[in-house]
Amino acid sequence: MAEGKPTKPDLAAVRAQIDGIDREIQALITERALFARQVGRAKGKLAAAIDYYRPEREAQVLRRVVDRNDGPLSDDVLVRLFREIMSACLAQQEPLKVGYLGPEGTFSQQAVHKHFGHSAHGLPLASVEEVFDEVASGAADFGVVPVENSSQGTIQSTLDLFLTSPLMICGEVELRVHQYLMSRTGRIEDIERIYSHGLSLAQCKNWLRQHLPLAEKLPVASNAEGARRARNADDAAAIAGESAGRVYGLKVVAGPIEDRGDNTTRFLVIGRAAFPPSGHDRTSLLVSIHDQPGALYRILEPLARHGISMDRIESRPAHGALWQYAFFIEVTGHVEESPLKDALAEIDAFAGDVRVLGSYPVAVP
Amino acid sequence: MAEGKPTKPDLAAVRAQIDGIDREIQALITERALFARQVGRAKGKLAAAIDYYRPEREAQVLRRVVDRNDGPLSDDVLVRLFREIMSACLAQQEPLKVGYLGPEGTFSQQAVHKHFGHSAHGLPLASVEEVFDEVASGAADFGVVPVENSSQGTIQSTLDLFLTSPLMICGEVELRVHQYLMSRTGRIEDIERIYSHGLSLAQCKNWLRQHLPLAEKLPVASNAEGARRARNADDAAAIAGESAGRVYGLKVVAGPIEDRGDNTTRFLVIGRAAFPPSGHDRTSLLVSIHDQPGALYRILEPLARHGISMDRIESRPAHGALWQYAFFIEVTGHVEESPLKDALAEIDAFAGDVRVLGSYPVAVP
Repeated sequence: MAEGKPTKPDLAAVRAQIDGIDREIQALITERALFARQVGRAKGKLAAAIDYYRPEREAQVLRRVVDRNDGPLSDDVLVRLFREIMSACLAQQEPLKVGYLGPEGTFSQQAVHKHFGHSAHGLPLASVEEVFDEVASGAADFGVVPVENSSQGTIQSTLDLFLTSPLMICGEVELRVHQYLMSRTGRIEDIERIYSHGLSLAQCKNWLRQHLPLAEKLPVASNAEGARRARNADDAAAIAGESAGRVYGLKVVAGPIEDRGDNTTRFLVIGRAAFPPSGHDRTSLLVSIHDQPGALYRILEPLARHGISMDRIESRPAHGALWQYAFFIEVTGHVEESPLKDALAEIDAFAGDVRVLGSYPVAVP
Repeated sequence: MAEGKPTKPDLAAVRAQIDGIDREIQALITERALFARQVGRAKGKLAAAIDYYRPEREAQVLRRVVDRNDGPLSDDVLVRLFREIMSACLAQQEPLKVGYLGPEGTFSQQAVHKHFGHSAHGLPLASVEEVFDEVASGAADFGVVPVENSSQGTIQSTLDLFLTSPLMICGEVELRVHQYLMSRTGRIEDIERIYSHGLSLAQCKNWLRQHLPLAEKLPVASNAEGARRARNADDAAAIAGESAGRVYGLKVVAGPIEDRGDNTTRFLVIGRAAFPPSGHDRTSLLVSIHDQPGALYRILEPLARHGISMDRIESRPAHGALWQYAFFIEVTGHVEESPLKDALAEIDAFAGDVRVLGSYPVAVP
């Protein structure tokens, strides 16, 4: 039907079809909400969302949505719609309360909405410390804190909070940012000036050196501002997200053009409890090394022997007295499942101390 | 099922049911997207959203959703889900571009998302004038501009832009704000201090005079800040939206307590074209009165005679040379339908000039 021969459709007939579909969708969403109440009523009366929110289950549902998808809607649009449906079903009694680094309108708020849907209640807070505090005290059910972005790399100050906090990591959220070179004419040979935020210009340095070595690079306050300026002249271009260019009627000259393909801001979801495996998980470990030669090696050896892939390792000065270094390590797998479970059991307790910060579903796009 | 006797449900069985429902919902959303492509392909190839976006049709779909709804989800949650589904189906080729008064995170952005869904591309702009300009130039498909709020009343500067702009009004969006008195204990007799934004305190003045005349009123920077402070003592309370109180673990003492029940910020959607009737419409008129006695009366008389209810009238100094006053008038009905059509035809052209700013669906909650 989508790829059929273009004929003028009978608008009224198509709309009647859509009306029938909407009726069915509504009936199903309603049925889903009633089933969600059953899940939430395990204790006799309808519970608060925090009592029956299951991140591993949500991740499984969303992965199935992606697996089933054959278009025409994109995976991320469908994932977003299903997140919203789950979010609405979950929020029937007492919605999730999620703290984040405010003010409203920041990337952190976007991450909250992306992960928990719009039926959760976001709580803008003044600092990442306050997000930890509010979750620890129970005022917030979860918190969303930035842990890595392309401009700053790992946000050490966030990691350091885990050194003294008992909170767990329950999830991760990734916001992807792609850079496009765009202009009014869409022709690379017209471009003599490129407007963009300084950070974005830096992210595309290699590409620019290779393709537009002579063009003037003009840093402006934001990528959107760059796109706005670029629409006024044929010899100007902007580097910005695709949507900013679209908004200003620019044509894509090239993109994505960022030098590293993984231009992403990553957030961790923090909470007070651990959750079961989702089938595709990641685990964050905080390893404190006793001050003796080869200690780190002895910690890592069982992981390597069990074939566990390590996604990241960061060393931090530890705050305690018994050791001198702490390492944040991220590995593939869940602490309740082999091979990670076995590997952790074999780590030599004499070499150091391994604290599991959390096992959580790998981010769904 | 929802109201059945509380028994411990078989979690795995309920989840299997939900999985089946999700599969059906996904199949239906996909089918809906394919039908939307048919509508959008009227001209042979898939058109940009602006070419087949129909506000009157969306309003009809949403009203049907509300009519059909018997719970357990609330009307506004279902309306939001369907707006998102429509927004996603519409955005398959070239999403709607919607200008608004920035920055991101403002009520105006919320209004854009509420009305157009998250698949539309919002364009934060520096001023309401710029929103008009961007829509007029075609850089944005629509604009969303605030026209009335409880604190300022009518925003005259927005209305004045219509005096010199050829743009049409294509819709209205209402964001409702309710005020609640909330405290840690939830008991009114404990309250000796009330924290809230000054504006919110003013909005609840009568209620407070009547119920808590002796309590100290303490204005703070925001309602959220008030809620934050109120959680620290038993004798403190806050006035804020319900969600802010929920976030800080406060109990509702009373509410809604705002003196006027319609504590709403209203936005107009502006565009370049007029749209057909939705069945429940409102029309904005800009009336310029020639300088002669009884002119306004002669304009209003046919409206009254045809039984058309007038929702609002605002006088503004006109900018043109031929008249001395301009009035913004909002009436019930659509210009293409009786009785408004007949009434407009009978207005004495000698008395003044009536410009139809737009007929548009009355806001769906």
